Amino acid sequence: MSKERIEHDSLGEVAVPADAYYGVQARRAMDNFHISGIPMSHYPRLIDALAYVKMAAAEANSSLGMLDEDKARAIARACEEILSGKLHDQFVVDVMQGGAGTSANMNANEVICNRALELMGFAKGEYDRLHPLNDVNMSQSTNDVYPSALNIALILDIRELIDAMDVLRKALKRKGEEFSDVLKMGRTQLQDAVPMTLGQEFSAWSVMIGEDMQRLDEAQLLVHEINMGATAIGTGLNSHPDYARTVTEKLVKYTTLQLVSSPDLVEATQDTGVYVQLSGVLKRAAVKLSKICNDLRLLSSGPRCGLNEINLPPMQPGSSIMPGKVNPVIPEVVNQVAFMVIGHDVTVTMASEAGQLELNVMEPVIGFSLFQSMNMLRRACLTLADKCVSGITANRERCRELVENSIGLVTALNPYIGYEKSAEIAKEAMRTGGSVYQIVLEKGYLSREELDDILRPENMVKPRYVHRR
Amino acid sequence: MSKERIEHDSLGEVAVPADAYYGVQARRAMDNFHISGIPMSHYPRLIDALAYVKMAAAEANSSLGMLDEDKARAIARACEEILSGKLHDQFVVDVMQGGAGTSANMNANEVICNRALELMGFAKGEYDRLHPLNDVNMSQSTNDVYPSALNIALILDIRELIDAMDVLRKALKRKGEEFSDVLKMGRTQLQDAVPMTLGQEFSAWSVMIGEDMQRLDEAQLLVHEINMGATAIGTGLNSHPDYARTVTEKLVKYTTLQLVSSPDLVEATQDTGVYVQLSGVLKRAAVKLSKICNDLRLLSSGPRCGLNEINLPPMQPGSSIMPGKVNPVIPEVVNQVAFMVIGHDVTVTMASEAGQLELNVMEPVIGFSLFQSMNMLRRACLTLADKCVSGITANRERCRELVENSIGLVTALNPYIGYEKSAEIAKEAMRTGGSVYQIVLEKGYLSREELDDILRPENMVKPRYVHRR
Amino acid sequence: MSKERIEHDSLGEVAVPADAYYGVQARRAMDNFHISGIPMSHYPRLIDALAYVKMAAAEANSSLGMLDEDKARAIARACEEILSGKLHDQFVVDVMQGGAGTSANMNANEVICNRALELMGFAKGEYDRLHPLNDVNMSQSTNDVYPSALNIALILDIRELIDAMDVLRKALKRKGEEFSDVLKMGRTQLQDAVPMTLGQEFSAWSVMIGEDMQRLDEAQLLVHEINMGATAIGTGLNSHPDYARTVTEKLVKYTTLQLVSSPDLVEATQDTGVYVQLSGVLKRAAVKLSKICNDLRLLSSGPRCGLNEINLPPMQPGSSIMPGKVNPVIPEVVNQVAFMVIGHDVTVTMASEAGQLELNVMEPVIGFSLFQSMNMLRRACLTLADKCVSGITANRERCRELVENSIGLVTALNPYIGYEKSAEIAKEAMRTGGSVYQIVLEKGYLSREELDDILRPENMVKPRYVHRR
Amino acid sequence: MSKERIEHDSLGEVAVPADAYYGVQARRAMDNFHISGIPMSHYPRLIDALAYVKMAAAEANSSLGMLDEDKARAIARACEEILSGKLHDQFVVDVMQGGAGTSANMNANEVICNRALELMGFAKGEYDRLHPLNDVNMSQSTNDVYPSALNIALILDIRELIDAMDVLRKALKRKGEEFSDVLKMGRTQLQDAVPMTLGQEFSAWSVMIGEDMQRLDEAQLLVHEINMGATAIGTGLNSHPDYARTVTEKLVKYTTLQLVSSPDLVEATQDTGVYVQLSGVLKRAAVKLSKICNDLRLLSSGPRCGLNEINLPPMQPGSSIMPGKVNPVIPEVVNQVAFMVIGHDVTVTMASEAGQLELNVMEPVIGFSLFQSMNMLRRACLTLADKCVSGITANRERCRELVENSIGLVTALNPYIGYEKSAEIAKEAMRTGGSVYQIVLEKGYLSREELDDILRPENMVKPRYVHRR
Repeated sequence: MSKERIEHDSLGEVAVPADAYYGVQARRAMDNFHISGIPMSHYPRLIDALAYVKMAAAEANSSLGMLDEDKARAIARACEEILSGKLHDQFVVDVMQGGAGTSANMNANEVICNRALELMGFAKGEYDRLHPLNDVNMSQSTNDVYPSALNIALILDIRELIDAMDVLRKALKRKGEEFSDVLKMGRTQLQDAVPMTLGQEFSAWSVMIGEDMQRLDEAQLLVHEINMGATAIGTGLNSHPDYARTVTEKLVKYTTLQLVSSPDLVEATQDTGVYVQLSGVLKRAAVKLSKICNDLRLLSSGPRCGLNEINLPPMQPGSSIMPGKVNPVIPEVVNQVAFMVIGHDVTVTMASEAGQLELNVMEPVIGFSLFQSMNMLRRACLTLADKCVSGITANRERCRELVENSIGLVTALNPYIGYEKSAEIAKEAMRTGGSVYQIVLEKGYLSREELDDILRPENMVKPRYVHRR
Repeated sequence: MSKERIEHDSLGEVAVPADAYYGVQARRAMDNFHISGIPMSHYPRLIDALAYVKMAAAEANSSLGMLDEDKARAIARACEEILSGKLHDQFVVDVMQGGAGTSANMNANEVICNRALELMGFAKGEYDRLHPLNDVNMSQSTNDVYPSALNIALILDIRELIDAMDVLRKALKRKGEEFSDVLKMGRTQLQDAVPMTLGQEFSAWSVMIGEDMQRLDEAQLLVHEINMGATAIGTGLNSHPDYARTVTEKLVKYTTLQLVSSPDLVEATQDTGVYVQLSGVLKRAAVKLSKICNDLRLLSSGPRCGLNEINLPPMQPGSSIMPGKVNPVIPEVVNQVAFMVIGHDVTVTMASEAGQLELNVMEPVIGFSLFQSMNMLRRACLTLADKCVSGITANRERCRELVENSIGLVTALNPYIGYEKSAEIAKEAMRTGGSVYQIVLEKGYLSREELDDILRPENMVKPRYVHRR
Repeated sequence: MSKERIEHDSLGEVAVPADAYYGVQARRAMDNFHISGIPMSHYPRLIDALAYVKMAAAEANSSLGMLDEDKARAIARACEEILSGKLHDQFVVDVMQGGAGTSANMNANEVICNRALELMGFAKGEYDRLHPLNDVNMSQSTNDVYPSALNIALILDIRELIDAMDVLRKALKRKGEEFSDVLKMGRTQLQDAVPMTLGQEFSAWSVMIGEDMQRLDEAQLLVHEINMGATAIGTGLNSHPDYARTVTEKLVKYTTLQLVSSPDLVEATQDTGVYVQLSGVLKRAAVKLSKICNDLRLLSSGPRCGLNEINLPPMQPGSSIMPGKVNPVIPEVVNQVAFMVIGHDVTVTMASEAGQLELNVMEPVIGFSLFQSMNMLRRACLTLADKCVSGITANRERCRELVENSIGLVTALNPYIGYEKSAEIAKEAMRTGGSVYQIVLEKGYLSREELDDILRPENMVKPRYVHRR
Repeated sequence: MSKERIEHDSLGEVAVPADAYYGVQARRAMDNFHISGIPMSHYPRLIDALAYVKMAAAEANSSLGMLDEDKARAIARACEEILSGKLHDQFVVDVMQGGAGTSANMNANEVICNRALELMGFAKGEYDRLHPLNDVNMSQSTNDVYPSALNIALILDIRELIDAMDVLRKALKRKGEEFSDVLKMGRTQLQDAVPMTLGQEFSAWSVMIGEDMQRLDEAQLLVHEINMGATAIGTGLNSHPDYARTVTEKLVKYTTLQLVSSPDLVEATQDTGVYVQLSGVLKRAAVKLSKICNDLRLLSSGPRCGLNEINLPPMQPGSSIMPGKVNPVIPEVVNQVAFMVIGHDVTVTMASEAGQLELNVMEPVIGFSLFQSMNMLRRACLTLADKCVSGITANRERCRELVENSIGLVTALNPYIGYEKSAEIAKEAMRTGGSVYQIVLEKGYLSREELDDILRPENMVKPRYVHRR
C-alpha cells in the first residue's frame, strides 16, 4: 500500500503524499521556493479570501451554465470548510514565491479540488471527475484570482488595524482628559517655549491617531475594487460576457464587502497603485506612532537627570547591570515596528515599479510586506495602549515648577511691552538666573496686578483678549 | 554716505546693505545656512503664500482692533507688490535652513516691513514706525505662518501638477483610440500571453494616470487645513480669541482657496502627517510614470533585435559611437525623475518622524523635497506627453505577425478541449516550431471552421460566449 | 505538587513554568512583546553567540579572581550544551523587543544559570547558589553583551552568505565558458548596440558577484570589532581593568574568530555604523542580483514574441489559464528578495539614526533585519544557481541571426568611413529594411573583401588594430 | 549677418547661436531636457573630468598613430582652457537627462571641438577640419567616457568631503579634551545610567567621524577603477588593442590619480555597484552626523526645562514670537541634510537596479544624487564645526549636580552588595526622593569610607579593580 500518489502536469510526473490535499503544482512550488520559510497558511485571511473567490467563481460559472451544478456545489462545500478553519495546513507554498501568485492559486485549486472530490465520493487525484484547472479555476486566471483575494484579505486586516488604532486613540484621549489640569511647559525644537497642559499633549496625539484612522479608512475603500473576470491580462478571454459582473456579485454576497468590479480590467490587472497608496498610509501611521513614542520617551526621561514630566508604567527591570533602572521598553518596540513598516514601504514601492506590461509579477512580496506591516502595527497599537499609555501618571509638581521657573513666560508680555523689551528681559533672566516675574517688576514695565494676571499660566494655554495699554 | 545700515536684534548689531529690504535676521540666516545654495526665491509660490498670510494677518489684526489701520494698509500694499512678482529677489535665505522656517518667516517680515515703511513715507529700518515682529508678525508665530504658507504654495503646485498629468493622460488616451485596431500579443512576466490591442495598452496607461490624478486631488483637499492662530505651539497664546477664525476667513478671501482652520491647533502644529500623505501620493504617481516608461522602452526595443512593436519619435542621435542609434531618452529621463521622487519620499518620511513634542522643526526639508518632486514630476509629464507619447507610431504588421505566430493562441482552446490537451499542443508547437493552428487540425481536436472562429484574434481581446461542444 | 515556580525581580513576583530554564525576566518579556511572533530561537546563531559570550565572560572573571572556579565551570558547561544545539527552545523572547536587547540578554542569563544550577546539583531557581545577574552577567551589561553577540552571529552568517554567493558566481562562470562562442547582439538602453558573446554576458555577471563577495568580506572584517568590557556605557564601570582584554581573548579562543576590542568603548557602545555599512553592502549585492535576474528574464522573454536568446529551465507550469506557458519564476522570486533587502536597509538606517546618547536602543530591529536579509539572500543565491543558472541553454541560431540582421554592425565602419557616412547607411537600412552589408557595397564605400573582414562578427567582440585607409 | 550657424546631425539641421561653442547635439538636448533646471556646469568637477578624459584620449590616439598630432594638440589645448575654468558656461545640458550621459559627452565633444577649431585657425562649426565625433570622441563611447569622468569628479569631491569631515572631527576632539574633566551622567534609553565625562561624549563623536572618514577613503579607492577603452559595451570595438592601457596611463598622468583599468570592461560598463557602495557610505556618514546633532540638541535642551548640560553658540534669534528663545539651528539644518542624503541613497539604489543588459542608462541621476549629497554633507560638516561645535560651552555645575543627585550611582555598588540589594536601594531612593548615599548608610550595607571611595564619580568613569568584601 503506497503512501504516495502520482500526479502529473505539463512538465511530467511528481509524487505527492497520499493524504495531501495539495497536488503536483503546489508540490513543485514547495521545492522551488525555499526562501522565507513562512508558508502561505501563516496569513489565514489570504487562505479564506481564496476560498471566497473560488466559491464565488464556481457559483457564477454554474449560474451561467458553464459548470455542472453538482461540481459547483462540491467546490462551494470545500471552500466552506476552509472558511471554517479547516485544511489551512494544506496551504504549503512559501509566501515569497515567483510566478505572480500562480503557485498560491494552484495550491488553492488543488486543495479545493481534492476535498471536493472526497465530498463527491471520489478519491483525491481523480481529476477526470473534477479538475483543479478546468473546473475549480474555470473562467479564472491567477492574474485576477490572486489580486482579488489579496484585496479581500487586506480589507479584513485593515479593519482590524483600525480597531486597534481606536483602542490606542481612546487610551490617549482618556489621558488627555485626566491630565487636562496639569500645567507644563511646551517645547519647540527641544527648547522651552510657552505653557500648555499635559492634557493638550495627549489629546493632540489622540487626534493624530484619529486622523490616520480616517486616512486608512479611505485607503480601504480603494482596495474594494477587484478585477475578477480579467482572466489572463484583463481582456476576459475565455470568460462569459456576464461573468465579471456575476462573480463580483457573488463575492459581495459571500464576503458582505462592498466590492466593485474595476471599470478597466486591463488597467486593473497591471496596476498595483492601490498597494502603494495603502503602504503609504501605513507608513504615515507608523511615522505618527514613532513620533508619539519618541515624545513619550522624552517626557518620561530621567528619573532625575531628564525631563521627568510623566511616568510610564514599569514593565520589566531595565538593565542587567544598573539596578532599579526601568526603561521605556514598550515605546521602544513600537519605534522599531515603525522602522520596519517604513522599510516595507520601500519594498512595496520597488515591487510596484517593477511591474512590466500586462501584469505585476511582484505581487507576492507586496502582499507579504503589507501583511507583515499591518500585523505588527496592530500589535504595536494594542501593546502601546494596554501596556503603556493606560498606566501613565503625571508628575504634577515637577511640571508646574518647570513652568513657573521658565523664561518662556516672557512671551506673554509681547502684546503689552513689545518683542524687544521682552527679549531684553529674557536675556537678563538667562544671565542672572533670575525670574521673569521679578525682573519685570524691577524694571517697572508692568504693575504687579497686571503681571499676575498676564503670567498666570492658566491664562496662557488658550487665546485671550488682550487689553492693550 | 554709507552703503549699509545697521540693524540689531537680541544678539547684537549687524550691517545690512542699505538698499536691502531684508534685515538683520535674514542677514544672519544667510551667513548661517550655506547648504544647498538655492535661495527661497527659487520657489516663488512659497514667497507668494507668505505674502498672502501676512496680508491676511494684518487685515485680521486690524479688524479686531489690534493693529492700526494705516499700518495694516501699508503691510497689505507691500504684500500685493510681492504678489505682483516684485521683491522676490529679497528672499535670500537658503531653502535648507534650521529653525523650523523661522528665517523664512523673518525674511518675509523684514521685506514686507521695509517696503511698507517706504510706502508710509519712512526709511527702511525705521522699525519704531512699523516693526517686523510687533506689527507684521502680530498674532503670529513661525509655527503657524510657515506651515500655513507651505500648504498654500503646495496646493497651487499640486493643481499645476494635476494639469500636467492631464495633458499626459489625454495624450495616452488619444493613442489608445488611434491604436484601437492594432492587434498585438499581451505579455505577462515577459512571456507571451494572449492577444490584446495596442489601444488597450495605451488606454490602460491613461486610466492609470487618471486614477493618480484623483488620488492627488484627494490629497490636495487635506492640505487645505491650516493652523493660523496657533501661534507658538497651538495654544493661541497672544492671539485674540476671534483671530484664528478671522485670519482664516481673510486667507480664504485673498487666495480663493477653501482653506479651513484645524479643529485642534496643538495637534496641527506638531503633526506633519499631511506631508507624508502627499509625498506618498506623489511617489505613487512616480511609480506609475516609471512603469509606463519602462513599458514604452520595452515595446520600442529594437529596431531589429527587440520587441519593436512601437516607434518613439527620435529626439536626438543616441550614441557617440554607434551611428544611427536612437535611444528612448525621454522615457529614460522620466524614470530618473521617478527615482528622485521616491528618494524624496524617504526624506520626507524621516523628517516627519523626527518632529519632537510641540513642533516639527524639519519642515524646511519637507517643503524643499515636495517642491522639487512636484516641479520635476510636472516637467516630466509635459515632456513625456509632448516629446514622446504624441509622436508614437505603431508597427502594425510586426504586431500582427507576432500574434499569428504565437503559441499563446492555445489559451483560447481551453473551454473547448480542456487545459491538458491545450498544454500538449503548446508543448508540441514549442518542440517542433510549428503553428498551433496546424497542430490542432492534425490532431483532429477541432474542425477548421471551429478553429477559424475561435482563433480569430479579434475574438480574443474581450469576453465571449462559449458554445461548449 | 506545583507545575510552576515563583521567581521575583525588582518589580515583584512572577510564576514561571517549573520546567522552564528561562526565568522571571524572560517571562515578563514574553508578555510585553507580542509583536512579530518570531522567538529569538529562530536565529540559532544569535543563541550560540550569546553562549560564547557568557562562557568567555565566566572564564575571564574566573581567571581574574572575580568568580569562583566551580561557578565558572558550571556556566561554561551550560553554554557548551547550548552550543551543541540544546536548550534553544528556551530562548522565548520575541526578536522584536524594546530595551536594547536586555530581554535577550536576561533570557540567556536565566537559561544558562538554571542549567548550570542543575549541573551543580541544585534546583532551577536557587539563585542564591548561582545568580543570573551577579554571576552569569558578571562584569557585563546588555550594552556590551548584545552587540558583541550580534556581531559574532553576523560574522558566521556573512561567511555562509559569501559561500552561497560563490556557488552562484561559479555557476555563472561555467555558463560564461560554455557560451564563449555564442555570438549575440549587445544592447544598450534596450536598443541594438554591437555584437558580443553570450559568454561575455555571463562572465560579466560572475565578475559582478565576485566583486560583491569582496565587499562583503571587507564589511565582515569591520564586524570583528566588539565592545566587551564596555559594561553600561563604555566606561567599563564595575569591570576589572584587565577584563576587556581578557574576555576578548577568551572569545577569540572559543569562536576562533579574529575578534578585536574596540579602541574607544564609549564610542563603540553608541555607534551602529558598522551595521549600516553591512546593510549597505547587502543592499549592493541585492541590487546586482536583481539586475542579473532582470536581464535573465529579458533574454529569455518569448518564446516567440520576445528576445528568446536563452532558455531558463522550466520549474513549474506557469499559468492556471495559459497552457504551456512557463515563467521565469526563480529570477522573479530573487527580484522580490532583493526588494525586501533594500527595504530592510531603510529600516536599519532609521534604527541607526535613532540611537540617542550613550546607546542605540534600536539594535534588536537592526539585528532582525540583517538576519532576515542575509538568510533570504543566501537562499536566493543557492536557488538561483541550482534551479536556474545551471540549467540555462542558449538559442544559438536565434542569437546569430539577430546579429547578422542588425544595423548595429555599422558601428564597425566608423574608423573606415567616419561617423556621418555610417549614420547615413544606418538610416537607409532602417528606411528600406535592407542589410548594412548590401548598402555599403551598393554605395561603393568599401570593397567586398574589406567589408567581409570588418563585419565579421567575431572581429567585433574585442579591440582590434584598424588599418586606416 | 546672421547670429546663428546651422549645424546638422543624423536627424537634420538645427540652428545654434553663432558664438556658442556647443553644437547641434547639445542644442537638441537643451530642448529635450527641461527637468531640474540645473545645467551640468553646476558641477564644475564633472566638466573638468570630461576635459581630462578628452585630453587623455586625444593623446592616446595620437601616440598610437590614430589621430594627427596637430589635431591632438589643439584638443589638448582646448581641454586645458576648460581646466583653467574657461568655457564652463558652455556646458548647458540639464543634469537630469536621458541617454546615459550621451548629451553630456556630446556637449563636451562639441565645446572642445569648436574651441580647438578656433585654436587651429578655423571657424566654429568647420567640422571637416576637426570633428566632434570622429576626432574628439575617437576610440570612445559615452559608455566609457561618462562613467570614467564621473569617477574622476567623484574622487575629487570625496577628498574634499573627507577634508571637511576632518575639520569637524578635530573640532569635536578639541572639545573632548576641553571637557575631559566635566563629570556628567551618561544616559541609555534616555534614562539616567552611570557617570561619564563630557569629554568622553565629544571624543566618542570625534572617533565616529574618524571611522566614517576611513570608510569613505576605502570607498574612494574603489572609485579609481575606470572603463576607458570599453567603447560601446565593453568589447572595445573600434579601439586599438593598446588603447585602453594607454589612455588610462595618460589619465593617471594628467589627473595624478591612481586610476586603474577595470579587468573586465564588459562588466565595468554595466555595473554601477561602486556608486551604490559609495552612496551607502555617504548614508552611513549622514546617519552619524544626524545622531550627533540629535544628541547636541538633547544635551543643550532647556534652558530651564531641559537637560541643559551644554550651550550651543547662539547664531540667530530663535523665534518670531518667543523673545529670548535661541534654537539649535545649526544641528537642525545638519539633520535635514542627513535626511536628504538618506533619500538620495534610495534614488541611487533604484537607479542602479534599473540598469539593463550592457549599460546602466540611469547614470545621470546617480551622478546628480551623489554630487548633491557630497556637496551638502561637506557644507554641513564645515558649518557644524565652525558655527556650532567650536563655540560649545559646558554647564559644569549643572552636570555635576545631576550626577550627585542621581540614582544611577547605585550601579557601582553591585560588585560589593549584589544586584538585588542595589535594586532595593534604587527603589527606595525613587520612592522617598532620598539620595543613594544616605540610604546605603542607613541600611548599614557599607561604611562611610567604603561608600565615599566607591561613589566618587571620578572612580566610575573607567574600569577599576574591585576589592570584594
